[in-house]
Amino acid sequence: MATEQSRYDEFLDRVQRLEHLESAGGILGWDQQVMMPEGGTPARAKQRSALSTVTHDRLTSDDLAADLDALDEESLSDDQRAVVREVRRKHERAVRVPSDLVEETSRATSEALEVWERAKAEDDFDHFAPKLEELVELRREYAEHIDPDADPYAVLFADYEPYLDLETAERVLGRLRDELVPLIDAVGNSDVDLATDAFEGTFDVDAQEAASREALDLLGYDWSRGRLDTSSHPFTSGNQFDARITTRFDESDPLGALTATIHEFGHAQYALGLPDEDFGTPLGDARDLTVHESQSRLWENHVGRTPEWWELFLPTFAEHFPSIDATPREAYEAANRVYEDNLIRVEADELTYHMHIVLRFEIERDLVAGDLDVSEVPAVWNEKMEEYLGVRPDTDAEGCLQDIHWSHANFGYFPTYSLGSVLAAQLNAAVREELPLDEQIREGEFDPLREWLAENVHRHGQRYTTPDLVEEATGEEYTADYFVNYVTEKYGDLYDL
Amino acid sequence: MATEQSRYDEFLDRVQRLEHLESAGGILGWDQQVMMPEGGTPARAKQRSALSTVTHDRLTSDDLAADLDALDEESLSDDQRAVVREVRRKHERAVRVPSDLVEETSRATSEALEVWERAKAEDDFDHFAPKLEELVELRREYAEHIDPDADPYAVLFADYEPYLDLETAERVLGRLRDELVPLIDAVGNSDVDLATDAFEGTFDVDAQEAASREALDLLGYDWSRGRLDTSSHPFTSGNQFDARITTRFDESDPLGALTATIHEFGHAQYALGLPDEDFGTPLGDARDLTVHESQSRLWENHVGRTPEWWELFLPTFAEHFPSIDATPREAYEAANRVYEDNLIRVEADELTYHMHIVLRFEIERDLVAGDLDVSEVPAVWNEKMEEYLGVRPDTDAEGCLQDIHWSHANFGYFPTYSLGSVLAAQLNAAVREELPLDEQIREGEFDPLREWLAENVHRHGQRYTTPDLVEEATGEEYTADYFVNYVTEKYGDLYDL
Repeated sequence: MATEQSRYDEFLDRVQRLEHLESAGGILGWDQQVMMPEGGTPARAKQRSALSTVTHDRLTSDDLAADLDALDEESLSDDQRAVVREVRRKHERAVRVPSDLVEETSRATSEALEVWERAKAEDDFDHFAPKLEELVELRREYAEHIDPDADPYAVLFADYEPYLDLETAERVLGRLRDELVPLIDAVGNSDVDLATDAFEGTFDVDAQEAASREALDLLGYDWSRGRLDTSSHPFTSGNQFDARITTRFDESDPLGALTATIHEFGHAQYALGLPDEDFGTPLGDARDLTVHESQSRLWENHVGRTPEWWELFLPTFAEHFPSIDATPREAYEAANRVYEDNLIRVEADELTYHMHIVLRFEIERDLVAGDLDVSEVPAVWNEKMEEYLGVRPDTDAEGCLQDIHWSHANFGYFPTYSLGSVLAAQLNAAVREELPLDEQIREGEFDPLREWLAENVHRHGQRYTTPDLVEEATGEEYTADYFVNYVTEKYGDLYDL
Repeated sequence: MATEQSRYDEFLDRVQRLEHLESAGGILGWDQQVMMPEGGTPARAKQRSALSTVTHDRLTSDDLAADLDALDEESLSDDQRAVVREVRRKHERAVRVPSDLVEETSRATSEALEVWERAKAEDDFDHFAPKLEELVELRREYAEHIDPDADPYAVLFADYEPYLDLETAERVLGRLRDELVPLIDAVGNSDVDLATDAFEGTFDVDAQEAASREALDLLGYDWSRGRLDTSSHPFTSGNQFDARITTRFDESDPLGALTATIHEFGHAQYALGLPDEDFGTPLGDARDLTVHESQSRLWENHVGRTPEWWELFLPTFAEHFPSIDATPREAYEAANRVYEDNLIRVEADELTYHMHIVLRFEIERDLVAGDLDVSEVPAVWNEKMEEYLGVRPDTDAEGCLQDIHWSHANFGYFPTYSLGSVLAAQLNAAVREELPLDEQIREGEFDPLREWLAENVHRHGQRYTTPDLVEEATGEEYTADYFVNYVTEKYGDLYDL
């Protein structure tokens, strides 16, 4: 036993050193997006590439392989076995991919980013098409190396969500499509108009930032372990000791910045709830993207888009913007208004949002399967927009070129946005079994919710697989029931359906 | 030849990957001092330690040793030989130090930092003494490993300034002591009073920052490759693509922040003048601390403390602080006033500053040699302050506990501050042989000076050793003559001596 323990300790030490290097890379990424002067790119690219090579070499090293071979899992504790499971999975996937392919993909995505930016700016899909083709092909090769017998899209999806299989994703997304398309249609036909001019106009960016900071104060963000900055795309970066939020401010959209800030707070709160003592090991790391997105969406939607939130927060908001003349109910309605002609995913409400995801999922799955040619993407995109949302983009810039993800070769990423929202609704229901959340939000008492999430989700790190974590936290299997009920009820109420 | 070239290319590739990892570590350091929330320390310590271990392993690796052995230097170009010289030196020093000692020193300095902070806060030298003793002993061991036959202090000094030997440092510092002590004495006895109340009072920190930014604009700082932030101790970090400045603002000392900003600009300008194409190799890295400090001091003193600077900048400064009612000459005098009772190095004028350095140099050299016991440091410090500057600290907090350097075990670092100032004066004289600098400063024409320094100093990176670089840039050997003449003339004029 003593030998086995010391063998495990050596293995864990190797894992920690690897994870510390990976999280060092995260700082370089945060700095690049938030602080780095524009001229710094050439140096930063080389620094990040050198660091990635080191971490990749260590993840695929013979030393780590030998450690994994030598461990007698029978003699380990459950927690230790969970650590081994997670490290083994990362190691085995990494060793199967030739480093040539890793480098080629890295080069191709760097190039694709610039090509995509120009294509989007010039509304020129043909400029991006050959790059997209190349990236699809590279990802197919990647999937083939990892598991030649599996559906390549399923392999890619598992990079972002390893434990909910693709069938589950397809089933849930299919259900969303079936349930939400008629609901969206009904909203479109409703006579109710939630428009208010209280949030129209120009809203000073400094005042927006002050309001966002007050929202974070209210929610209980730990500033001694975090920061708020701006970046072109809001994101969260860090760990349990240092979880930083970015947001963005648009003079014409004060609700957008607030929503983004609360969303990122949810991500940060997950990181901050991970156990300090397990930093640098899978037990101190977040479960994957579905669970991460469930945390951001829970705070964004089930807290920040509720009538109670607006009862709590409107007075604060109005202090920064004396021109806002609205009741809490009007603010709630404005924050939940469905813009029927909206074409842009990141500007969508929590109902139509998922149609943007379903559409991307269906297209990228068919692209990777070889059932759809890259040249057909714009036409298929526009048809599906018409079918699911009743609107048709005039340009590809507002259509299939709008998102950055494909230029990163992140095929399989989009579904986790919806899967996370679905889980958020399920967790929200479980929370409300135990906590009087409406009253607590109205009173600004967020300690109980933060503690519930830390206790039932965060503190486990990667101890459980996603399905097991869902069961552990909610007592039930992962299901879309709660989400469907939630949006049906919420939008039924808002739009008198 | 082809083989030799490809052998060199492989070696250079290894060197670059190592340097990229080292500069990645620099980003983690900058972030920690400027951006990181206080709670982030435990994670950051682990990230930095993991990265240091990787770079140390690579610097001492058998692969690098084999590369260095295999190279046929005869067949290399001068530039390639310079690269090999620099890498070989770093490698050979690193391999001689056992990793146990590296780790123990790292642990001891981490502990010492906290101990020193408390000792300084509580004015309790006895609390720091055992740690200081331990650090001196660890550095002696370190020096012994690197060269058992050399004076250990000379070995330590060579970590910061590898190519000006300790005899040169001693000769120059001895000359400063001999020349400056009577000059400081004469200033003290002068009837001239440079005091002005124009810079007394409270100066808004935001306005100070705006003024600092305008000073950097005027000097020609390239904001696309840099930033200005604040930190508790001003410093510069980065490379030719991304050279960032920090400064600090004190409401009661508007000149201090401006001076610190211009000083750091000089450091940043050096980094920015290094050749882009040699990034990640010794030809793209700055020569060591003497030359670095010569750049900061040249801008700080020979530009920023001149009468012409104040003719140029006072109107801008006064726009931010309408309460300032002074002539350019009065501002110049205020910026150069000798505070005779000043005890603090970082607040010293450019005359008394060097006595603070001489004192530290003499004490740390004797400590490392074993000629001075740690317990005697406070008494010796106070005696030397009396002897050199005519003042005696009442407390050790204002005496031998004032600087952070010894808690970092940086014995041998202090001399480079004075050696750099001396070189700044020599470079200043060489510049003025070619450029009408007074007029250019008065007119705000800084392109010629920036270009002169880039051409004669920066672009060489580590091509030349320090003495060769000095000769290349000035046509003369390194000498204190210019510095002594400069301060004698300047303070003679200011104080009617």
